[in-house]
Amino acid sequence: MRQEDLATRLGEKIRNVPDFPKPGIQFKDITTLLADGAAFREATQWMAGLARAKRVDRVAAVEARGFIFGAALARELNTGFAPIRKPRKLPYKTIAESYSLEYGTDSVEMHVDAVKPGESVLLVDDLLATGGTMLAACRLVERQKASVAACVFLIELAFLKGRDKLSPRETHALIRVDSE
Amino acid sequence: MRQEDLATRLGEKIRNVPDFPKPGIQFKDITTLLADGAAFREATQWMAGLARAKRVDRVAAVEARGFIFGAALARELNTGFAPIRKPRKLPYKTIAESYSLEYGTDSVEMHVDAVKPGESVLLVDDLLATGGTMLAACRLVERQKASVAACVFLIELAFLKGRDKLSPRETHALIRVDSE
Repeated sequence: MRQEDLATRLGEKIRNVPDFPKPGIQFKDITTLLADGAAFREATQWMAGLARAKRVDRVAAVEARGFIFGAALARELNTGFAPIRKPRKLPYKTIAESYSLEYGTDSVEMHVDAVKPGESVLLVDDLLATGGTMLAACRLVERQKASVAACVFLIELAFLKGRDKLSPRETHALIRVDSE
Repeated sequence: MRQEDLATRLGEKIRNVPDFPKPGIQFKDITTLLADGAAFREATQWMAGLARAKRVDRVAAVEARGFIFGAALARELNTGFAPIRKPRKLPYKTIAESYSLEYGTDSVEMHVDAVKPGESVLLVDDLLATGGTMLAACRLVERQKASVAACVFLIELAFLKGRDKLSPRETHALIRVDSE
C-alpha cells in the first residue's frame, strides 16, 4: 500500500478531542487507533519498515505514550528497549536533559547504561509537536556516544516545525497535520 | 523450557537497586531485562502463552511501565490495547477508580469506550506488589461490563499478598519473590 493511503486510513482511526488539555487545542487521541488491533499492527509495521532500511541496535522512547509504540517496535524488530523517563522515576544512575515548555522547563532522564557507545538507536513517539522532548531524548542518546538512527512518529503537527528542531537527524512521520 | 528455568534465567536479568524509592526498599529494576532483546521477547512470549489458553479480546495496562509489556503483548496477540492512566491524562470521557496508598489515595482512569461490554480483557503489569493499582484497573474493566481474562505480571512480591486482593480473578506471575 502507498504510504499516503496508509496515512489516510490510519488518520481516520485517530480521534480529535477539542479543547484538551486546554481551550483551543485539538488533541490527537490515539487511543482509538490503539483499540483497533489491525490499525495498531499496521502503524507498528510502518515504523518497523523504516527501521529495517538501516542498522538499529535498540529502540528508545519517552514515557508514557511513547512507551506504547516504543515497546511494540522493539518487539517487532527484536531489539532491546530503553525507557526515557520523567525525573526521579528511574532507579539506577541517570543522566538528564532539560527542555523548554511554554512556561518554564522540564527534563527527561535515561539510565547511564541504557544505550552503549557506538549503538544506533531508533527513537519513537506517537506525536511530533514542537520537538522539545524528542530533542532532549536525542541528546541523552548522543551523550552516551551512541547515534540516533532516526526519530519516528505516528503523527506530525507540521505547523509547529518540530522537524526543524530535530535536524540534521532523520525524522519520519506517517500522518502529517498541516494546520491547527 | 520449564517455567522455573525461564523464571530463574529472566530473574537474573533484573537488577536490584537498594534504597529506591526510599531507604529499605529493594527496587526491582526491569530496564536491564528490557535492554536485552531476547529476554524481552521471552518474557512477552511467556505472557502470550498464558493468554492463548483463553479468549482475549483486548489487552489493558496502567501507565507507565505497564504500557511496555501491555503494548508488546497486544502486538504479540494481535489485539487492541487499552491504556489506563493517571488522572487528567486521557482526553476523552473517562471513568475513574481510587485505590489506597501508604498515605492517602490515588486513582486511575480509563476511556468509557476503551473496552466493550462482553469483552474478555487481559490486564498486565511488570510487578505485583500490594495489588491496589491492578485491583482498580480490574474494576474499571468490570464496570464497563467486560470481564478480566487474567492479571499477568512479570514479577510478584509474594510477601505483600497482592494476589489475595485480586482474587477470585486469575493471577499469573513468572518470577516470584518471597521475602523483602
